[in-house]
Amino acid sequence: MIAEIITIGTEITTGSTLNTNAFFLSQKLFEIGAETYYQTTVDDDEKRLMDVINIALNRSDLIITTGGLGPTKDDMTKEVISKALGLELELDPVMEENIKNLFDRMGRCMSNNNVKQATKPKGSSFIENSIGTAPGIYINKDNKKLIMLPGPPREMKLMFNNHIKDLIHDDLFIVSKSVNTVGIGESSLESKLVELNLASVNTSIATFAKDGTVEIKIIGKGKDKEQIQLEINSIIKTIDEEFDKYIYGYDNVELEEIVVKKLINKGYKIGLCESCTGGLVSSLITKVPGASNVLERAIVSYSNSSKIEEVNVKSATLEKYGAVSEETAYEMAKGLMDKVNLDLVVSITGIAGPDGETEDKPIGLVYICIMTKENYKIIKSNFNGNRTLIQNRTAIKALDEIRKIL
Amino acid sequence: MIAEIITIGTEITTGSTLNTNAFFLSQKLFEIGAETYYQTTVDDDEKRLMDVINIALNRSDLIITTGGLGPTKDDMTKEVISKALGLELELDPVMEENIKNLFDRMGRCMSNNNVKQATKPKGSSFIENSIGTAPGIYINKDNKKLIMLPGPPREMKLMFNNHIKDLIHDDLFIVSKSVNTVGIGESSLESKLVELNLASVNTSIATFAKDGTVEIKIIGKGKDKEQIQLEINSIIKTIDEEFDKYIYGYDNVELEEIVVKKLINKGYKIGLCESCTGGLVSSLITKVPGASNVLERAIVSYSNSSKIEEVNVKSATLEKYGAVSEETAYEMAKGLMDKVNLDLVVSITGIAGPDGETEDKPIGLVYICIMTKENYKIIKSNFNGNRTLIQNRTAIKALDEIRKIL
Repeated sequence: MIAEIITIGTEITTGSTLNTNAFFLSQKLFEIGAETYYQTTVDDDEKRLMDVINIALNRSDLIITTGGLGPTKDDMTKEVISKALGLELELDPVMEENIKNLFDRMGRCMSNNNVKQATKPKGSSFIENSIGTAPGIYINKDNKKLIMLPGPPREMKLMFNNHIKDLIHDDLFIVSKSVNTVGIGESSLESKLVELNLASVNTSIATFAKDGTVEIKIIGKGKDKEQIQLEINSIIKTIDEEFDKYIYGYDNVELEEIVVKKLINKGYKIGLCESCTGGLVSSLITKVPGASNVLERAIVSYSNSSKIEEVNVKSATLEKYGAVSEETAYEMAKGLMDKVNLDLVVSITGIAGPDGETEDKPIGLVYICIMTKENYKIIKSNFNGNRTLIQNRTAIKALDEIRKIL
Repeated sequence: MIAEIITIGTEITTGSTLNTNAFFLSQKLFEIGAETYYQTTVDDDEKRLMDVINIALNRSDLIITTGGLGPTKDDMTKEVISKALGLELELDPVMEENIKNLFDRMGRCMSNNNVKQATKPKGSSFIENSIGTAPGIYINKDNKKLIMLPGPPREMKLMFNNHIKDLIHDDLFIVSKSVNTVGIGESSLESKLVELNLASVNTSIATFAKDGTVEIKIIGKGKDKEQIQLEINSIIKTIDEEFDKYIYGYDNVELEEIVVKKLINKGYKIGLCESCTGGLVSSLITKVPGASNVLERAIVSYSNSSKIEEVNVKSATLEKYGAVSEETAYEMAKGLMDKVNLDLVVSITGIAGPDGETEDKPIGLVYICIMTKENYKIIKSNFNGNRTLIQNRTAIKALDEIRKIL
């Protein structure tokens, strides 16, 4: 099955927006065995969009578009594709009601513009969008499958994951399995994988780095599902043995989900005292449903006085060793542990930059203290990058350290 | 001048590599006034690449390719383009010598494969690559300009910045200006812009939504730079008048940057008490360099006991009105204000879901309390979406409310 991804929007062709939609869809299509030979991006222009659609219909079996389904006049994907396929647009009363209800719930008035989001080409079906107003569209006509998804990545990704896979299923079996690692760089990981020479007849292996974590993806493809599964299991077994201490989960789970799950399993209550990460670790943990079972509280002790007042850091310690020091990290954790009845406390203090560097304390210097009722551990790191990168890497490091002691 | 960017490589079409080359080139072409209507990506396949090149030659005046200039058999961009244009490939002895010297300097042996990097289509010229072995190629034939650049982003970007601008210079000026808004939906904003009918002879206007904020971009283009600037200024003036209360900044500034800047200007110290956002507002503020001048501390009072102990919320209030209520929001803010000498306190409590819904309190219900020494204000909102979206929208709302009282 030859696939083509068409991303529509002047924000992409003018370089306002990085095209992460094509990246995501290519990955997903690759996983299910479709061969994506083309990605096309075109601006919001009726004639050019029509040309691009016609070229795609001519060379591809499966076409997925993103963008141009919104309520504004620039949004014309549905109209142009209907025209290209000779299909009329019809108003769907159920969808009209749904969108109206959505606007009612938000306490906003539904404009006439929004009505057009309830139309679809004759013979097509809607694809549910549970977090936005623009539904997707699925057309299966003359052996061509055409899927229109909205442009906002969050909506598009959710819809793809929930609804699209079944629509574009092929007669080859594709099995993919991911191993998620943290604490090892992508290039070291890849060199080691190459040395291990793991790929078999029906499988291939790739790595994807993201925010301090690296995903190892094993993809099997063929007619014999059981055989593929066997090959993949054998590869996973070797990877498990070789990279054990770096592996935090399987199949695209986020590190913070694993941490929350482990905390719940242990019945642990956790408290955080963050300085340079400014609440980032806390906000990552609270992104996970069920976080209220484990996170008791977090203190962002950004100022010296808050370190003293909230978690009882001694003035003398701050004066003698500075806010970014092993001693302060320890006292931050100890202070919170003494104040609240917790099973685990994590404190973080560091220099995120661009200011705050001193001769003996460079930007990127971070101390993390992990404390239980019985024990504690202080980890010193030197991170590279700009302010945001240092904050993100520190947060991932802290989550990894929590994971490791659970 | 209609431009097209063709990025070549199976690593992009299989979703291994995010296509940042097209993003970079689109931005650069936009800045110099070329109209990039198309971005095309194709895998490393001779026939398909040939088709894509022919389509581009048919619809665009300027074609920039990246990728496929390396020494391996997968690299065939130069060969295919030469064929499409009916040009012979010839070996350039000077370039051959250069590449040989480069290999000598690296202490590596030049393979026969590398010799093909010294060939170029007849009548074309080389573009210097000072940090890699693959030079670029520039062809100007039959009113079409064709530029081939290597795929590695670092080489490609350096070559573009150093050599390409002069080759594709146009005699048009481009001026663009952005107005950043928050608190108004993209479709309402666009309806109003359409009513205002602002675009002039040399300008166009577009809107881009991102995470609860909407950017209005005004793009002017023409031969008379001063005239364009005048037209843009006049449009901005009207937009300023019409959308005053929604505008938080100009030219792609982030809302949190504006908030931190305004807090610094007023000399305000701020404290946060977050529940459902779990530290997200604090972490957004601390992403901004200089945040330590304004953020004194933040309390993530996630549990009831932390609300009672940290910010003195009354048990009776939690029992009678619940943790998500106007009364609790008020007491959270008041408690922090009483505890610390601050100019501004923001408290947030809400139901991010998926759990926690009750009959009279739906998922997405959020109370934000903004308190100064003299006054306070409580904002009730009902947000849509999943947990992450509700948290993000709440954070943007809180930042916007801070902005508005400064």
